[in-house]
Amino acid sequence: MSFFSIFKRAARPGQAPAASAPVGEVLFVGAGPGHPDLLTLGAARAIREADVILHDRLVSPEVLDFARPGAALIEVGKTGFGEAIPQEEINARLVAAARAGGRVVRLKGGDPCIFGRLDEEIAALDAAGLAWRILPGITASSAAAASIGRSLTRRERNAGLRIITGHDARGFADQDWRALAAPGAVAALYMGKRAARFVVGRLIMHGASADQPVSVIENASGPAERVSAGRLAELPALTQACDGPALILLGLAPHPRVASDDQANLALSDFPFLTDLLQEA
Amino acid sequence: MSFFSIFKRAARPGQAPAASAPVGEVLFVGAGPGHPDLLTLGAARAIREADVILHDRLVSPEVLDFARPGAALIEVGKTGFGEAIPQEEINARLVAAARAGGRVVRLKGGDPCIFGRLDEEIAALDAAGLAWRILPGITASSAAAASIGRSLTRRERNAGLRIITGHDARGFADQDWRALAAPGAVAALYMGKRAARFVVGRLIMHGASADQPVSVIENASGPAERVSAGRLAELPALTQACDGPALILLGLAPHPRVASDDQANLALSDFPFLTDLLQEA
Repeated sequence: MSFFSIFKRAARPGQAPAASAPVGEVLFVGAGPGHPDLLTLGAARAIREADVILHDRLVSPEVLDFARPGAALIEVGKTGFGEAIPQEEINARLVAAARAGGRVVRLKGGDPCIFGRLDEEIAALDAAGLAWRILPGITASSAAAASIGRSLTRRERNAGLRIITGHDARGFADQDWRALAAPGAVAALYMGKRAARFVVGRLIMHGASADQPVSVIENASGPAERVSAGRLAELPALTQACDGPALILLGLAPHPRVASDDQANLALSDFPFLTDLLQEA
Repeated sequence: MSFFSIFKRAARPGQAPAASAPVGEVLFVGAGPGHPDLLTLGAARAIREADVILHDRLVSPEVLDFARPGAALIEVGKTGFGEAIPQEEINARLVAAARAGGRVVRLKGGDPCIFGRLDEEIAALDAAGLAWRILPGITASSAAAASIGRSLTRRERNAGLRIITGHDARGFADQDWRALAAPGAVAALYMGKRAARFVVGRLIMHGASADQPVSVIENASGPAERVSAGRLAELPALTQACDGPALILLGLAPHPRVASDDQANLALSDFPFLTDLLQEA
């Protein structure tokens, strides 16, 4: 059976790198929002072939199950406001793993290019003279939109979408509130639970209607997915009820069918499909 | 071998729907930017199980290869400015296919929730009383960012990203140019080739520097991927050289290594992996 390596310099999976192998390559891989069906084929292969996987805390167990027996799984995240490994430490571990010659996957939730501090890790690899590539992943806003059954853009309503974060290095992130408050504006707010009250205040101050629709998608695509919805003014209350990571869609209400049946949760199926195939390989 | 159906009401793949089967379900599936390694596991399965696949013209042949022999592949797209099947006709075909009881995949390039006119097709299914779900896909901006080796967001630079279109129902799309012209702003411009001169004019009029970096990613992730880059004022010339679909990243220059080696093209590998496995199944 053909099983081409996704790592440029790597041996076939399961084999140790040859003695002559150059130092390892790092693949930055997007793990998607959580459901293994939303992992890409490339990501599944990269995880399967990796010797070392440095992963965020939020990467789901079902996704990590693609790793082969014997691969080193190292958690380096970073969830919300809890204990966190400093970014410099993550960078150092990444460099050390690649220098050791392994096939290294740096596995990030969602898409590594969106709120993933990717540039900082790339800079560390560059400084060490190490090779890297990026495999994009499905970002939470795409999964959240699918879960509420709504397009993020619509002709005659919004010719643009904003992807924003509730927090940046200095605290609550500043945004172009005037543009976000405009009628018809749609924005996906990441890491917005603690910032909800701040965001609502800024939007209303800049002219947004307190009645505009908002949707909160907790654990988008995962088994514990929960959709709640209401008016902008209710957002702080809606987010307070969330335990897991939440994606907030400003300006969008769920499709009416989402509340009435199981549309809300992707519930695609159980997911033994590729895992089984890989174990047979 | 386990091969769970991704369609709720469907029989096992390859079997005709039972006589008692209710009318079909439509899965809106994101085909991603083109490279089959960027297809999700769920999308690969949905395409494999479908009886009927209505697909955009831009969906790559390698992705359509996942369809099983005997599936009906119907092109209903819609490329740039060429001949197009009217949206009403697409809606009608979708409804007819689902009413006939088949497992129907509506396969859209990228992510169906971003510039895919998804709400219009959902409204047609709702009016006909038909069930649907959405499987998100990798949108072009994620693939383009990966190809130029840059994060779309960066602490201290931009706490938000704009996803905008060059065209809407009325012609060149209007945007919040003032916000887009701000220093550090990053935007992904879809369908921006013809609108390039208009966009550059608006941005400069609203205070953008003519020297800010832009990257043009043609056929992102595909075998004909090409990255060109320059200053904002050069954007119209850069896009004129493009034949294929192009994604424009405003405010981002490619990572220096992208120009110097094969970083630019994902070139993940050949991709017989899952296709082979499916054929063995």
